[in-house]
Amino acid sequence: MKYSPEKSYQVLERTPAVLRTLLSDLDDDWTMNNEGPDTFSPYDVVGHLIHGEKTDWTARTRIILEFGLSKPFVPWDRFAQNEESKGKTLSQLLNEFEAIRTDNVAWLRSLKLSEADLDKKGMHPKLGEVTLRNLLATWVVHDLTHIAQITRVMAKQYKEEMGPWPEFFRILNF
Amino acid sequence: MKYSPEKSYQVLERTPAVLRTLLSDLDDDWTMNNEGPDTFSPYDVVGHLIHGEKTDWTARTRIILEFGLSKPFVPWDRFAQNEESKGKTLSQLLNEFEAIRTDNVAWLRSLKLSEADLDKKGMHPKLGEVTLRNLLATWVVHDLTHIAQITRVMAKQYKEEMGPWPEFFRILNF
Repeated sequence: MKYSPEKSYQVLERTPAVLRTLLSDLDDDWTMNNEGPDTFSPYDVVGHLIHGEKTDWTARTRIILEFGLSKPFVPWDRFAQNEESKGKTLSQLLNEFEAIRTDNVAWLRSLKLSEADLDKKGMHPKLGEVTLRNLLATWVVHDLTHIAQITRVMAKQYKEEMGPWPEFFRILNF
Repeated sequence: MKYSPEKSYQVLERTPAVLRTLLSDLDDDWTMNNEGPDTFSPYDVVGHLIHGEKTDWTARTRIILEFGLSKPFVPWDRFAQNEESKGKTLSQLLNEFEAIRTDNVAWLRSLKLSEADLDKKGMHPKLGEVTLRNLLATWVVHDLTHIAQITRVMAKQYKEEMGPWPEFFRILNF
């Protein structure tokens, strides 16, 4: 599947609603448990996604369009949400994510990116040269894999209650 | 996390809305592609979930409550949706899944299952003895892991467009 701005926005703009439908008003046992030390709970994932909206995806898009390869991206702090989410309810985080994602997709649409824009390059601190197309495709994949992570983390909470069934679910050992 | 009927219904009853939010009105490139031969597209997954509602979860619950170990479960045909979904749009399947899931959770609630009921046993054709608690916990996990599967399948469609980024996403090699 070739990258297309419109098809990527189709996914990016629905992610907040997907998370709201999946997580709103669930018992804390579903949303606050994780997969072990230094792993994310569903609550943590929403904070992580907010941090990405604030500091990563649009910031890196701007760097590529304004500075190209001359200004490397700032590395993403993957645990920033431990501080930034403090004292906030999951419901507040879901609202915050929806608001900032809506703004960011509106901004992205306003750029009316051309194929030439998508070919422009930036410098990732670890991966080296990447194109704007790579960055925007990865933004979509990042959303999708974090939805997968949330449902996997939730599923694992019931692993002990499944009797012999976990052997049919290889995802539980991921 | 201990199995509780109420916490499991919280998840089961929202799955149709999660799938609708995730998949409605998406381009076919997102919903009709799969991970290779004999794997499911998001469209296939919805058909698979419908087949489970019709033939598996509630049917097995009935067998446990009425016959216990004396009547083994009927094996699940994992590819039944190849025939059953034929000619149906994704939108039709999403509606069908929502209707049958709503009925099934209402039926499940009407049973007012006790802990003694949850301890009752049935005979799985491959796994041997399982309890009703095992079956119902597995139903929830089955939903969650298929949502994870859908988002993973979607994510993989962009793998080639991500440049060097796939190495940060181990889920893409799952």
